[in-house]
Amino acid sequence: MENHPNSLKKGEFVVIEDEVDIGENVSIGHNTVILKGTVIGDNVNIGCNCVIGIQQGGNTRMRKSDEMGNKLIIKDNTYIGNIVSIYSGSIISKNVFVGDHASIRENVLVDSESVIGRGAIIELNTKIGKACTVQTLAYVTGDTTLEDHVFIGPCVSMSNDKYMGAEKYELKGPTIKENAKIGNNSSLLPNVVIGKDVIVGAGSVVTKNIQDGEKIAGVPANSMKK
Amino acid sequence: MENHPNSLKKGEFVVIEDEVDIGENVSIGHNTVILKGTVIGDNVNIGCNCVIGIQQGGNTRMRKSDEMGNKLIIKDNTYIGNIVSIYSGSIISKNVFVGDHASIRENVLVDSESVIGRGAIIELNTKIGKACTVQTLAYVTGDTTLEDHVFIGPCVSMSNDKYMGAEKYELKGPTIKENAKIGNNSSLLPNVVIGKDVIVGAGSVVTKNIQDGEKIAGVPANSMKK
Amino acid sequence: MENHPNSLKKGEFVVIEDEVDIGENVSIGHNTVILKGTVIGDNVNIGCNCVIGIQQGGNTRMRKSDEMGNKLIIKDNTYIGNIVSIYSGSIISKNVFVGDHASIRENVLVDSESVIGRGAIIELNTKIGKACTVQTLAYVTGDTTLEDHVFIGPCVSMSNDKYMGAEKYELKGPTIKENAKIGNNSSLLPNVVIGKDVIVGAGSVVTKNIQDGEKIAGVPANSMKK
Repeated sequence: MENHPNSLKKGEFVVIEDEVDIGENVSIGHNTVILKGTVIGDNVNIGCNCVIGIQQGGNTRMRKSDEMGNKLIIKDNTYIGNIVSIYSGSIISKNVFVGDHASIRENVLVDSESVIGRGAIIELNTKIGKACTVQTLAYVTGDTTLEDHVFIGPCVSMSNDKYMGAEKYELKGPTIKENAKIGNNSSLLPNVVIGKDVIVGAGSVVTKNIQDGEKIAGVPANSMKK
Repeated sequence: MENHPNSLKKGEFVVIEDEVDIGENVSIGHNTVILKGTVIGDNVNIGCNCVIGIQQGGNTRMRKSDEMGNKLIIKDNTYIGNIVSIYSGSIISKNVFVGDHASIRENVLVDSESVIGRGAIIELNTKIGKACTVQTLAYVTGDTTLEDHVFIGPCVSMSNDKYMGAEKYELKGPTIKENAKIGNNSSLLPNVVIGKDVIVGAGSVVTKNIQDGEKIAGVPANSMKK
Repeated sequence: MENHPNSLKKGEFVVIEDEVDIGENVSIGHNTVILKGTVIGDNVNIGCNCVIGIQQGGNTRMRKSDEMGNKLIIKDNTYIGNIVSIYSGSIISKNVFVGDHASIRENVLVDSESVIGRGAIIELNTKIGKACTVQTLAYVTGDTTLEDHVFIGPCVSMSNDKYMGAEKYELKGPTIKENAKIGNNSSLLPNVVIGKDVIVGAGSVVTKNIQDGEKIAGVPANSMKK
């Protein structure tokens, strides 16, 4: 028999599997699925038609994460929208906002106060720092690091495989340092390091490392002279 | 007790909350959720696994709309696909098509005969004119105006914040005038005005206002000489 | 009464309509909908909150496929994620992986061993060859051909209408030949032919046909000289 707090506000046709821990004052919308191994803190809101705590799957051509634990931890006061998918083996910290239609994979940390926009996708083995903004429909590839206060504009794209599947290669996404801002629809190549306080103009293609404080734009992106 | 028309065709595991008005000959697919305050006209089709009539939420870093009413109005003969989310405080006019996986936020008007493509996202405080096409995976940012007969190609990106969160600034998206056509995967900067009948080539970055009738392309976009 | 194999592993609130054939050792996640006319092979896994076997709909401005059959066929050992939508009139072959939030329309063939990434959208009348990879959030437009072993990077965009709805025109997407690789966030124009083994750099705009073996990049894309 289920043993959930009386304060749980649960919609219709909600599925909560076994081995799910739920804190106080949690709200779960209609038709949402909470899978085995999910740990939900206090005052968490989860919208309708979500799938939360997905176990890794896939065929033999898909990468698997070695380091993942087997739980999904969602901390206090976090707000998750509607039609969201989140994998097991990740941590969503306090006061995070996850927009509708977003997807977060395994072995990911989304640190406190960060915003993951609508339709954004965060791939595996990735760390999102504190108070970051990942805007609508942005794509954060696997093996990527965002330090604190990073801004990723709408529809930004990243990649982590310079051979596009043709050769064996240790996959590595970008590293984006504190307070850097990436303009909408920019493209970041594998393994680039973007320094602190860098500003990347909209629609740029970043092909190399960028030093702290630079402002760049274009295809390929270069310094903007005033 | 519910009081819905006999002509309602309702799938399995559908949730219809209180204070929902439903017209004649409406079809609602399996597992779809219709939330409080939704008004549905005649001959409306809604697919499966949708969430319709979402109330605003989010943490303190998210913008809120002041002007929103508290109802979602979906007018006659409109067709809504599967796995769609639409917020309360918006109007979806007659004969509109909303594709699968699309999302429309609060305080939005989608005027009659328009098409919102699959996976497209329309942010808050935005007006889409009559007979517009917003193609697949396009992103229409907040505080944006599309006049009538505008064509937004697939994967077009827009932004409305020139400081990317760094300074206080009145957010303002693009204004796109009658009959303008934006090529696929173009990027539009905040507050640009794109004139009537303008054609923007695929992959362009539009950084400034464009006069009526111009044809532009490139990064940044400039006039195409023949 | 339903007549499904004893080996079927079915979640809660699953809807399986009439005239659905299900093979051995199939798993269907919670809240998933399997619509009339779907044929599922052996050892197929389908995640939660999916909508499978959608019949074409839409208003008069939407294109319709003439050639579609009225069944969706999903072959053995294929893995379908969560919150996925797939239309009737298509074939998903053996050992295919379809990521979460992906959408596949009618009259599409996804051949064996291919991967359709998370949030990717495959439009109608399109053929994806064997062992292709279509990465996260990529957009494969209608009337497109991918030969075998093609790699489409994340967020790649395509179009199939050079007049953007303004004139009558036979819609035609790109043709991408064997083993070609398209870098992330590139834009492909209607009807371009991309030769065997071509490599397109990230963020490129491909405006013309590209011969076998070329390496191109830029806006518009040109040969990369070493």
